Amino acid sequence: MDRPNTRWEILRNLKKSETFLSGEELAKPLGVSRISVWKHIQNLKKMGYEIESKRGEGYKLLEPPDKLLPPEILPLDTEIVGREIIHYEEVKSTNLKMREKSEEEEGLIILAERQTEGKGRLGRNWKSPKGGIWMSVLLKPNIPPVETPLLTMISSTSVFESLQEIGIEGSIKWPNDVLVDGEKICGILTEMDAEMGALNYVIIGIGLNVNFDKNELPDTGATTVQSILEEKVDRKALTGSIITNLDKWYRKLKKNSKEEILDSWRANSHNLGRKVDVEMVTGESFTGTAVDFTDTGGLVVKGENGSERTFLSGDVTLSSDSR
Amino acid sequence: MDRPNTRWEILRNLKKSETFLSGEELAKPLGVSRISVWKHIQNLKKMGYEIESKRGEGYKLLEPPDKLLPPEILPLDTEIVGREIIHYEEVKSTNLKMREKSEEEEGLIILAERQTEGKGRLGRNWKSPKGGIWMSVLLKPNIPPVETPLLTMISSTSVFESLQEIGIEGSIKWPNDVLVDGEKICGILTEMDAEMGALNYVIIGIGLNVNFDKNELPDTGATTVQSILEEKVDRKALTGSIITNLDKWYRKLKKNSKEEILDSWRANSHNLGRKVDVEMVTGESFTGTAVDFTDTGGLVVKGENGSERTFLSGDVTLSSDSR
Repeated sequence: MDRPNTRWEILRNLKKSETFLSGEELAKPLGVSRISVWKHIQNLKKMGYEIESKRGEGYKLLEPPDKLLPPEILPLDTEIVGREIIHYEEVKSTNLKMREKSEEEEGLIILAERQTEGKGRLGRNWKSPKGGIWMSVLLKPNIPPVETPLLTMISSTSVFESLQEIGIEGSIKWPNDVLVDGEKICGILTEMDAEMGALNYVIIGIGLNVNFDKNELPDTGATTVQSILEEKVDRKALTGSIITNLDKWYRKLKKNSKEEILDSWRANSHNLGRKVDVEMVTGESFTGTAVDFTDTGGLVVKGENGSERTFLSGDVTLSSDSR
Repeated sequence: MDRPNTRWEILRNLKKSETFLSGEELAKPLGVSRISVWKHIQNLKKMGYEIESKRGEGYKLLEPPDKLLPPEILPLDTEIVGREIIHYEEVKSTNLKMREKSEEEEGLIILAERQTEGKGRLGRNWKSPKGGIWMSVLLKPNIPPVETPLLTMISSTSVFESLQEIGIEGSIKWPNDVLVDGEKICGILTEMDAEMGALNYVIIGIGLNVNFDKNELPDTGATTVQSILEEKVDRKALTGSIITNLDKWYRKLKKNSKEEILDSWRANSHNLGRKVDVEMVTGESFTGTAVDFTDTGGLVVKGENGSERTFLSGDVTLSSDSR
């Protein structure tokens, strides 16, 4: 049996060593056979690790692959989010995959190199080529379903902060995007399974355009980290940073520090104080000035006649005369 | 292949006939073989239909079984709810079973004779012996997730009305029960799968205690139709009535006739105008007078100091000094 823990231990030992390690040297401390080591090595190679084997000398790790493999990201200094990471080369969508794992403990993360049917909000497509961060997080907070938008909020805030760490100044667009200079760099798709009074689970899908050119995207209003910085970044470190920020904000949310979450949104919002058009699910639309967020994550818009309306969902665009 | 449509046609023809029908007579109008008729008859027998076979004469239906089989309930004069019914002898829970069918068109109904793991709200058990109506309905309305409580409302209203039709005067307890003389006769478990702005689907589970004695229930605060009327009722007709009422109210909801739904709740509420204790998911509780329902199905409670609070979920009990 190929136990992942043994596999990661072998990988860790290969990473530490600058010289070849024999099958014997790798097997002994883990209490496994040399055949078992050989099998683990084959699996690591399949995962994308380049490992050189030399007769009589053993194994040596060359370059770690440019993939979001768990041992490349973990361990992280987090309490809940990222407790476990599952990696796929290709999935339809990481959110869809996470549904199959919804019985697992919260904090589980799914990462994929590519999504063939990446989803945006309201059934829209989300192009997910190689080089992006396509991630889903499983959360099971004890909050009423109406407060679920706060989870979207902390997710976009986390991505916003991680982008800041690599020198990109974004802004957060209600309800679920991160923009840079008005172009979308990240979308959040929050899905929930709930009964009336209680959440069963929430899946947060984060799609961040990283190491590919924005010309690869069909949407002209979208951008990528690579297109902004004019170079590729360390996608593994960026993933770890998002997970770490999300864990921090999720713990704040669990401690009921809603005001802190809202203040961060207020400070970094793309829409606040600007004239917006809100298009509702029903097709109706409303124009006014975005004035605040409610403590369940709604957007408060002040209409032209002074009346205020709160929106819990919808599409927001800057009104043409404020662009 | 055993096509259900052919099966129901054979059943319909057997029902219409007071004499034996030969295999030939049954097969011909449906364009199937006599062997195929024989196979369908075996399946109908397995479902619980008592069919006498006589060599040289053919088949004759004796008594239809006391089971909520689709051909015993359909056709109904409904537009959406009950478009299709699937029947099971035994399931863990009809809501759980419906999750597997969530890709189907809305209006689908699942009925089971028994549930081995019937669910109440918040993971509580719901005893589901033979003789009850254990039903789930799949709905996909284009409403924001926050309005989902309206679906619970129309469900309890439909059961309330169907009970009225058989002479039982119940009352509706917010958020999800129907009571008779303060004892629970029906519980509704509404589960939803949603993203922030839009519902994917809603499953409404209806559990109604019908043809068994209330002594079969562990809960001393519960009752059954049989215990109230001191006789068994036509469970098939009652099921059809609930489906018909639900279809009527669901169409009203789709036409956005929220006020009519709320007025019906106001008229038949167990709690309204009475002093109640509300226990929230978080464990907190609040005491006051239930004064109204909001247009997303929340309960408005006026505290002793005059302040009003709106609850979107929680457990409500009549306050000890108003019982």
